[in-house]
Amino acid sequence: MGKQSKHKSALQNKEGVDAPDTISKTAASHLKEQRKKSIDINTLIAAVLEGNKVALSRAITIIESMASKHQEQAKQLIKGCLPKANQSIRIGITGVPGVGKSTFIESFGTLLIKRGKKVAVLAVDPSSTLSKGSILGDKTRMESLVKEENAFIRPSASGDSLGGVARKTREAIILCEAAGFDTILIETVGVGQSETAVHSMTDFFLLLKLAGAGDELQGIKRGIMEMADAIVINKADGENLKAAKIAKTEFNRALHLYPPKDGGWVPKTLLCSAIQNEGIDKIQELISDFIAEGTTKGNFQKKRNDQNKFWLLQTIENRLKSDFFSSEVIQKELKIQVAKIESQETTPFEAAETILELR
Amino acid sequence: MGKQSKHKSALQNKEGVDAPDTISKTAASHLKEQRKKSIDINTLIAAVLEGNKVALSRAITIIESMASKHQEQAKQLIKGCLPKANQSIRIGITGVPGVGKSTFIESFGTLLIKRGKKVAVLAVDPSSTLSKGSILGDKTRMESLVKEENAFIRPSASGDSLGGVARKTREAIILCEAAGFDTILIETVGVGQSETAVHSMTDFFLLLKLAGAGDELQGIKRGIMEMADAIVINKADGENLKAAKIAKTEFNRALHLYPPKDGGWVPKTLLCSAIQNEGIDKIQELISDFIAEGTTKGNFQKKRNDQNKFWLLQTIENRLKSDFFSSEVIQKELKIQVAKIESQETTPFEAAETILELR
Repeated sequence: MGKQSKHKSALQNKEGVDAPDTISKTAASHLKEQRKKSIDINTLIAAVLEGNKVALSRAITIIESMASKHQEQAKQLIKGCLPKANQSIRIGITGVPGVGKSTFIESFGTLLIKRGKKVAVLAVDPSSTLSKGSILGDKTRMESLVKEENAFIRPSASGDSLGGVARKTREAIILCEAAGFDTILIETVGVGQSETAVHSMTDFFLLLKLAGAGDELQGIKRGIMEMADAIVINKADGENLKAAKIAKTEFNRALHLYPPKDGGWVPKTLLCSAIQNEGIDKIQELISDFIAEGTTKGNFQKKRNDQNKFWLLQTIENRLKSDFFSSEVIQKELKIQVAKIESQETTPFEAAETILELR
Repeated sequence: MGKQSKHKSALQNKEGVDAPDTISKTAASHLKEQRKKSIDINTLIAAVLEGNKVALSRAITIIESMASKHQEQAKQLIKGCLPKANQSIRIGITGVPGVGKSTFIESFGTLLIKRGKKVAVLAVDPSSTLSKGSILGDKTRMESLVKEENAFIRPSASGDSLGGVARKTREAIILCEAAGFDTILIETVGVGQSETAVHSMTDFFLLLKLAGAGDELQGIKRGIMEMADAIVINKADGENLKAAKIAKTEFNRALHLYPPKDGGWVPKTLLCSAIQNEGIDKIQELISDFIAEGTTKGNFQKKRNDQNKFWLLQTIENRLKSDFFSSEVIQKELKIQVAKIESQETTPFEAAETILELR
């Protein structure tokens, strides 16, 4: 999306009125610059609200920017987009590498668009700074979806912390919603902590799996099974079909051993072949049922409210921790106390008190 | 245990030397009191280290006390006992009410004692302040175990927070270990957050279940299945036996769908009938295998070190949070910001910043 400045878009800067002669050249240029910026953001918000994808992309770039000069703009963007946000279905999609997430999203997204939806695809992948973008980074993936007028695909936000990446993704969701996208797909790799973050920002959480429940489980983090609202066994075609059917029975049996989810939803297992576009419609129907049930029972909005409170408290707690532990004095004492605990000279509780006294 | 002062124990106070006449009556009595207390604690430590159960009970009472005068004594107690602690196997036992935890512990504990072990039974039940001690509170339970010389049974610590209860239990473990108890059983009800705390202070975590995996699952918290090192299906006797065997197959199948635990341990499902003392020996053998494997691979001590670090950081984080949120100004702003989030006027992240600025 780096070439957007070449496009003729709704983002043309309005020409400012010339500065009066009495003001110095520098001050005039400074003022002009200031005004230009503030016009930019308001124009940008207007363009996002009109559903302009180039504007949306530029807005997300500002939100993702680490530069301090963009932070005030980012706040304005969010403020301007918030009233139009929240009107969408947010679906989290996870699974280990190789399970076929991109192909699934391509197939699923295309189906949704055929049914009149506007689909935005985001990704949370805190590891992408190291792996140079392992998911959604390769633009040749999702070849047909990317060409759709009603699709918007955005590679994963990078950042130095999961908290930072999660915040950027949450804010990107707001912008996409404000731009009229009514279905937000958020892709994540089920190997780190990112899927917990994605689970906490989506209405429906879908776990993609393969048949042959052995080796492919190695990579998936404990607890993900329990987060899933549905397990979809992909590549259920050809010679795989039999194994996939057996796996479906096993997963369904396993899911019944779990306690039911809030609101009584019992997670389901479905089969699909994303590459052959088979079973995708059933998944869409399942999600529709889930949303309809949640809306009727009031769980849908309750879950979003809970998620908002979670992120509020989480952000505060993370800041309290990072501020505390960033002190060198604390770090030094922490090492001393850990050594003392290991040599049985103190308990974790006594050690904590000693460290806290240094505040 | 409230009647211990009537017992003739190792805790007789040594008579102090009479105060010289030159010191006022009050000061003398104060000094005497001070000396008596410090003698008490050292004598108490010595008695605990000798394995005196009355002393152990009194020591735990001091640790559990909310009174500020006991806090310095509690620290001395821990300091004195720590070098002798850590030489035990800590086993967490959870399951919903009605699953037969007391009967299981009675049967399992008695077996361990027959095999030469010294068994201490503790309980974590933060709800007990409300329910007036729902577990271990009734002393008529575990009737035969309580009579054993090598058993020590302690009702659950009460407290106003799980953190407080967890700390007291962790410290009680240290005292029990110092008193020579080599197997510590920690009972908890699998309905709240307490089992996460117990999981984080034990070497082996055992989930008790009943056959007929339907209704009894309602009460158990999500995630507990994944914490278990073993699932034991109790009441596998008489007409229940067939259902128990089916349940065993189902749980084993489900457990294989989980990723393996650190160190490669694959959780097992076993059957038992605690009331008929059947299958209990197999459970003991399984735990022995687990410990042997963990000790050989080095996982055993690694897990304890990780747990210590967890409690250290957890204690610090909880204090940072409680100090922050105890402020009235913060509480007031929190309410305002939550309302603003719900009416779409702000995001959780912006709200968090506003609240954090009030520090």
